[in-house]
Amino acid sequence: MITSAANQKIKRIAQLNKRTSLRKRENVFVVEGLKMFLEAPEEHLEEIYVSESFLRNPENREAVRKLQKLGYEAVADQVFGKMSDTQAPQGILCVLRQFDWRPEQVLEKGGNPLFLVLESLQDPGNLGTIMRTGECAGITGLIMSRDTVDVYNPKTIRATMGSIYRLPFLYTEDMGELLQAMKRKGIAVYAAHLKGSKRYDEADYREAAAFVIGNEGNGLKEETAALADGCIRIPMAGKAESLNAGVAAALLMYEAARQRRWRTE
Amino acid sequence: MITSAANQKIKRIAQLNKRTSLRKRENVFVVEGLKMFLEAPEEHLEEIYVSESFLRNPENREAVRKLQKLGYEAVADQVFGKMSDTQAPQGILCVLRQFDWRPEQVLEKGGNPLFLVLESLQDPGNLGTIMRTGECAGITGLIMSRDTVDVYNPKTIRATMGSIYRLPFLYTEDMGELLQAMKRKGIAVYAAHLKGSKRYDEADYREAAAFVIGNEGNGLKEETAALADGCIRIPMAGKAESLNAGVAAALLMYEAARQRRWRTE
Repeated sequence: MITSAANQKIKRIAQLNKRTSLRKRENVFVVEGLKMFLEAPEEHLEEIYVSESFLRNPENREAVRKLQKLGYEAVADQVFGKMSDTQAPQGILCVLRQFDWRPEQVLEKGGNPLFLVLESLQDPGNLGTIMRTGECAGITGLIMSRDTVDVYNPKTIRATMGSIYRLPFLYTEDMGELLQAMKRKGIAVYAAHLKGSKRYDEADYREAAAFVIGNEGNGLKEETAALADGCIRIPMAGKAESLNAGVAAALLMYEAARQRRWRTE
Repeated sequence: MITSAANQKIKRIAQLNKRTSLRKRENVFVVEGLKMFLEAPEEHLEEIYVSESFLRNPENREAVRKLQKLGYEAVADQVFGKMSDTQAPQGILCVLRQFDWRPEQVLEKGGNPLFLVLESLQDPGNLGTIMRTGECAGITGLIMSRDTVDVYNPKTIRATMGSIYRLPFLYTEDMGELLQAMKRKGIAVYAAHLKGSKRYDEADYREAAAFVIGNEGNGLKEETAALADGCIRIPMAGKAESLNAGVAAALLMYEAARQRRWRTE
């Protein structure tokens, strides 16, 4: 059992939670909590740390059986807090190998795929909520510009509530090239824009489609919006300047899902 | 100018940011940032604190003119950080008198009002985002159960992006009585529920309506759901267990707005 906060493993996990570059270099990420452990794809699990009190809690009997099968390291309660990114740690933490979705896996889906493209999104919690909503709305995949916040940020992971394990995603180095490639494949690209000429519920998303959403503060870059087949806006009453990016993404993805349901009924 | 972190005013603001009970007792709340200052209703403004560097910044010239008219207290930069709830303070902070919406103001609106009712919501950021979305969707008012997180929590205030100033809201002591009163007034009450019998896009929200949304982790209490005229569910693909409460609220409010637009066109 690890009983010292000076233990190298403990220090490394704390650093992995803090530093995007270290996560990238080691090709891993950290998840916390029982749900994130139980849903984790086993082939990605590299290390598992469990607190004493987690192991002793009779409610965790089933999880402990799984832990015994997979192997784990026990950690003293006071030390566990040092590796955790949360204020009230649940007592179980895993290091997983990062996902490696290939562009052809994400983009070459048949049928009428539905994509969400994020440009320069900065809020980690927002990104996680968007992944969670994207899985629920049934999108095919999520594509992010290179300068979007790291999907393996612990706040993002937490907000995905497990969707990180299931929703295909990619970072793109070249947003312009990505959108051009989508258009060549017959995917209609819609940019969410405060000055969009069409309302979001006026366009037809029943064929292959992608929504592009910009940064929380500044919205989409003009050159990105210019590449889209159409600019759509979400009507706003009152005096607020904009919607939260996660809310805007949810409204668009669920509008597409709604239209696709009504066609098939 | 205030130059000491031991100054009583500085200590009081820090406490006001932390303690719901103190905010309640003094009937005030704290907002931060230029936008929240500029949009604040002047009749609610009680105190204004501005950092040295804010005052010196030529970009703030217009704001400083307004400050001179209203009166403010200058604060040394290092001290300003002690009163701020944010990691990168913008250098302007106001104490405002709390709002006092009367039930008859909020509930007795004519036309076809649209309400959002929240039961036991716990995440302050979520609540703020919901207010912001509610204003944009054009709802009439927001009603919260007594045990919902404090709307004057600094995280909530920040996430409202100013909607706290404009969207009427109430806390109710008795959720059952509130829903009964709504029904007596002819407001159709729809409970969001994972096991709802109808999809959220199958019901008709063009007449007076209210949506009831439950706690992030546990959803609605059964006795609350039982009082509703109907239970509606948001379809979910994939394996996620639920949507974020703020996302669910946005989808419902904007579905009502969509239906109401299509009628009037």
